[in-house]
Amino acid sequence: MTAASVVSKTVHPFDKAQLDTLLTSRFFFAPAFEIYGGVAGLYDYGPPGSALQANILDVWRKHFIIEENMLEVDTTIMTPSAVFETSGHVAKFADWMVKDVETGEVLRADHLVEGVLEARLKGDKEARGVAEEAATEDKDAKKKKKKVKSTAVELDDTVVAAYNTILAQIDNYTGAELGAIIREHDIKNPDTNNAVSEPVQFNLMFDSSIGPTGKLKGYLRPETAQGHFVNFNRLLGFNNGRLPFASAQIGRSFRNEISPRAGLLRVREFTMAEVEHFVDPENKKHARFDEVKQIKARLLPKDVQMQGRTEISEITIGEAVEKKIIDNETLGYFVGRIHLFLLQIGIDPDRLRFRQHMPNEMAHYAADCWDAEIQSSYGWIECVGCADRSAYDLSVHSKRTGQALVASQVLAEPIVTERAVADYNKKTFGKTFGRDMPAILEALNKYNDEELMKLKGELDAGTSSITLEDGRSFNLTKDLLTVERKTFKQSVREFTPNVIEPSFGIGRILYSLLEHSYWRREQDIARGVLSFPTCVAPTKVLLVPISANTAFVPLIREISSKLRAAGISARVDDSSATIGKRYSRNDELGTPYGITIDFASVSKNTVTLRERDTTDQRIGPVDEVIAVVADLVQGTISWPEACNRLPAYDGVQDVD
Amino acid sequence: MTAASVVSKTVHPFDKAQLDTLLTSRFFFAPAFEIYGGVAGLYDYGPPGSALQANILDVWRKHFIIEENMLEVDTTIMTPSAVFETSGHVAKFADWMVKDVETGEVLRADHLVEGVLEARLKGDKEARGVAEEAATEDKDAKKKKKKVKSTAVELDDTVVAAYNTILAQIDNYTGAELGAIIREHDIKNPDTNNAVSEPVQFNLMFDSSIGPTGKLKGYLRPETAQGHFVNFNRLLGFNNGRLPFASAQIGRSFRNEISPRAGLLRVREFTMAEVEHFVDPENKKHARFDEVKQIKARLLPKDVQMQGRTEISEITIGEAVEKKIIDNETLGYFVGRIHLFLLQIGIDPDRLRFRQHMPNEMAHYAADCWDAEIQSSYGWIECVGCADRSAYDLSVHSKRTGQALVASQVLAEPIVTERAVADYNKKTFGKTFGRDMPAILEALNKYNDEELMKLKGELDAGTSSITLEDGRSFNLTKDLLTVERKTFKQSVREFTPNVIEPSFGIGRILYSLLEHSYWRREQDIARGVLSFPTCVAPTKVLLVPISANTAFVPLIREISSKLRAAGISARVDDSSATIGKRYSRNDELGTPYGITIDFASVSKNTVTLRERDTTDQRIGPVDEVIAVVADLVQGTISWPEACNRLPAYDGVQDVD
Repeated sequence: MTAASVVSKTVHPFDKAQLDTLLTSRFFFAPAFEIYGGVAGLYDYGPPGSALQANILDVWRKHFIIEENMLEVDTTIMTPSAVFETSGHVAKFADWMVKDVETGEVLRADHLVEGVLEARLKGDKEARGVAEEAATEDKDAKKKKKKVKSTAVELDDTVVAAYNTILAQIDNYTGAELGAIIREHDIKNPDTNNAVSEPVQFNLMFDSSIGPTGKLKGYLRPETAQGHFVNFNRLLGFNNGRLPFASAQIGRSFRNEISPRAGLLRVREFTMAEVEHFVDPENKKHARFDEVKQIKARLLPKDVQMQGRTEISEITIGEAVEKKIIDNETLGYFVGRIHLFLLQIGIDPDRLRFRQHMPNEMAHYAADCWDAEIQSSYGWIECVGCADRSAYDLSVHSKRTGQALVASQVLAEPIVTERAVADYNKKTFGKTFGRDMPAILEALNKYNDEELMKLKGELDAGTSSITLEDGRSFNLTKDLLTVERKTFKQSVREFTPNVIEPSFGIGRILYSLLEHSYWRREQDIARGVLSFPTCVAPTKVLLVPISANTAFVPLIREISSKLRAAGISARVDDSSATIGKRYSRNDELGTPYGITIDFASVSKNTVTLRERDTTDQRIGPVDEVIAVVADLVQGTISWPEACNRLPAYDGVQDVD
Repeated sequence: MTAASVVSKTVHPFDKAQLDTLLTSRFFFAPAFEIYGGVAGLYDYGPPGSALQANILDVWRKHFIIEENMLEVDTTIMTPSAVFETSGHVAKFADWMVKDVETGEVLRADHLVEGVLEARLKGDKEARGVAEEAATEDKDAKKKKKKVKSTAVELDDTVVAAYNTILAQIDNYTGAELGAIIREHDIKNPDTNNAVSEPVQFNLMFDSSIGPTGKLKGYLRPETAQGHFVNFNRLLGFNNGRLPFASAQIGRSFRNEISPRAGLLRVREFTMAEVEHFVDPENKKHARFDEVKQIKARLLPKDVQMQGRTEISEITIGEAVEKKIIDNETLGYFVGRIHLFLLQIGIDPDRLRFRQHMPNEMAHYAADCWDAEIQSSYGWIECVGCADRSAYDLSVHSKRTGQALVASQVLAEPIVTERAVADYNKKTFGKTFGRDMPAILEALNKYNDEELMKLKGELDAGTSSITLEDGRSFNLTKDLLTVERKTFKQSVREFTPNVIEPSFGIGRILYSLLEHSYWRREQDIARGVLSFPTCVAPTKVLLVPISANTAFVPLIREISSKLRAAGISARVDDSSATIGKRYSRNDELGTPYGITIDFASVSKNTVTLRERDTTDQRIGPVDEVIAVVADLVQGTISWPEACNRLPAYDGVQDVD
């Protein structure tokens, strides 16, 4: 039980505007280059946002890399064009955009369709007098759609049905299909009421030029994955040639979004954490699958979505793999691990689901894909992708570069095969056929086993002949060549590994967590509280001297230094604001514990300890309070257990 | 005393080729996109390199951010053009390049001059029969110069002197000066013997285009600093308006080098760690200066270099600041902190110096700058810059955006000033002057105190006049305006903070550390050892079962899990190689401790503990060995102290 769970956080309805103000004023994050007017889709993290991100990444590193001994890599962002030509990103990593025919404004085609149709459906409901649905409507609507004002106009029932069908499959359309929908349903730019052009592709990679010649084109990576793939042979070598193994990378990626909105959820530069788990395609079992198979992750399979429905399958991961809803154990294992990770950092399990990609929606490299989607005020947002990239990437890089990117397996039992082999007589063959020899040998090489056996029979009987592609025929005899059946023993199997890829958008997870952690106290709705789990809280402890009296300075220094030695991040707030205001400010920063230093601290060496969610205050000797805080931060005890070690402080009303 | 210091590491001369092979084969780092033929200046870090980098950054974060409560930020790499126009990078962040007039090959002008002149000097020495200087020659030569083969040709003594003078100031020339040197000394492209063009500037920033319109130009940041400056107001607010404070950032930066050579030392993409310490320009004292003033950092001031000399000043930082060799306490404080950081991660103090920039070499924003240079086989390389950027950045951003970027100080004693002020009569002034009123008021506004007092005298005496720039004169009387002396009280002082910036190139530090940590054992010179301090070693403990016997599996699992719980990174090597080979392999990876599991471990619950540098082996019960390792990793005990807790293992010869 986390400390947060002992209080109700839903006393007051979610107030997005208040949260936004809190996040900017406390500098969790803010638009980048704001003093220059900002740039859409670029955000900077301030001190609490940076610390929150660093802590999420720290939990991620322990949960994935250290727990499973993954091989961490750090590869470059700048990538020569050839790599993304091979991976398919130059041709296919694009969105469909349309232009306003009058103003030239650029819009994302799918967002335009979605925004306009949803506004019409809303207008229809208004006209019919149907109450607006609750904010938890089950669509990832607000994240994408262009904001469109609705007008109360009733629609035909058949039109409503058609719109709903389109919206349920909005991620599933080609550019031509989006163009047809735009024409059929007379969709215009809602800002200008002008028509829009046919959809054209816009590649989402930022490009640049490497070196001074202007001849070597580079792209900023849109994912870290290719950096793992091009290093596959070195990684396999580092792992002593053994499979399965996983590499992992935390790093920045870039996507030149057409018209980013929705804050941290759709940005042009972002931190990712990616795992590439390399596995034998013939054995996608996972050694630790038992540890996750009982988990009931909330699954939304593709078949359900293809019918325009969105209800969740409430089954275990074990059952989902058994029924082939999830393709294999390794994919299922990572779905389970992702689920556990997100819960550990504080994501609300009721606002988390795993949605399977529909066929047209799948990335060009993927064989199966499950997105961990998290619900926020923007709807259901993809925060983690868990894709089976099959052998796609290693195969294409190997083909393009001519380098083998394979693993090998020593077979327990060698595979023994028998087949016919033709042996030609080097002396006579050349003399007989002269310049035609290479063409004849090439034609012979194409014979299959059956053809070779037929040839053998004819040669044994006396003579045979071979016909080239150009129609010329040549006689063959036993003096020229012989055919024998031979036995082959294969003791090593070579194969291209498949890749299972859990890929985390850290900014999206971080923003979702901010919404899930945010609530307001009944007695003080003007200020928010961010109830982060202690493991990700930007600062663990606030030190608050009751006044600016210099008598407190040595004790503050002592406690700071002891907390630092215990590896606990703490901040001192010795500003002139009241204790209550200082605590409120730190509730906004999500600091779980506060230590107050007053005159009793100086005379009796006691301090009080405040818990953020309950505002409980306890009292005890300095060293015991630090020991309790250390255990709380380590996660070895809960707040109720801490309360068993420290008596309640009865002066609470004086200071809070 | 570190464990490493108990053995001599200079038994065998440094073997660069062997180290390079070790670093690539163990995948510390490797050329990026190698299977595509690679791209100059781009490198990927493999598992040990990534871990080494992460550990260096972890020490950095504790040493700087946590120790001084700095405000960590994480800002975007992609930056709109306007920001770098303001900062001066668009105009000035460039190198001089020349083109081969026949082939079009692009060369860096200073590197070309340096390479050719050094080759001529070397040829001169050969011709004179002078022995080649030792590899430790005191110039940062190899890092930059184009590789040029020398021919034994004797030069005039005056020519030798001229070349040496040029080389001593090679960082100090403008493009025109480099062009003159190239003409005067007939310098050609050594690869083709063709002439080269006049030097032209090449901007080192990668550019791109933000969004789909192609109208918003962006650059990849060449430093993280601007991200701090544009957020100055938010950071100051987060710090409750108080100065001094520092922000810090770890992140990727990019420089489109003309022709990068020298491995990790000159790359196009790199990780930086930067501190921007904001300070009152009138008070650059530092509260913790006492903690560093006794440090004897090896200083190379600009005056010495301007005389073409390179000897080190052996004085304390306190003395250097007192004598104004280092401009101020804050700059001196950071020189000391950088010195301590580099020593902590394992840089050899004898191969570290702080070199002050010469005037022409200084970045366009800097008022004073000291580079921490580390010596390696490439010569003396700048690894940390410590610059006083003065008020440059905040001033230019403020001017361009119209946003105040200032701090304020409540004055202990308000400043009281008295000055003359003109007050015009709103009714009569307008009636009298009509359309000319604004021009007259503007002219009046330009009067200084003396002129206003003269005007007052004339008005008191009856009448005066004012003459505009266009030559027209207007009479003034007391009815129209009066002049009075008034008292002003200023209780808050506003000022633009200055910035002291320690800026760390992590890749360069990491590479230098690899060279400083590398040595070879007398009894096994075929393999290298990397004696990293434990705090930065990629893996702390190697677990080695003596054979593949399954009896060891439970114990390996138990020890792994206990080490993981203690936060100690460990790897198991259960490959079929001999114990000796496995230890050698891990000496190459720099793993400081090895735990061997044998049959005694299973029967008596004891394991042996091996120390990398001495190859000492000790023995003890599993839990005691883990406790000792935990203390060693924490840095609370040294290896000799560990030896007091664990008896020597006398079976050493059997396994190593």
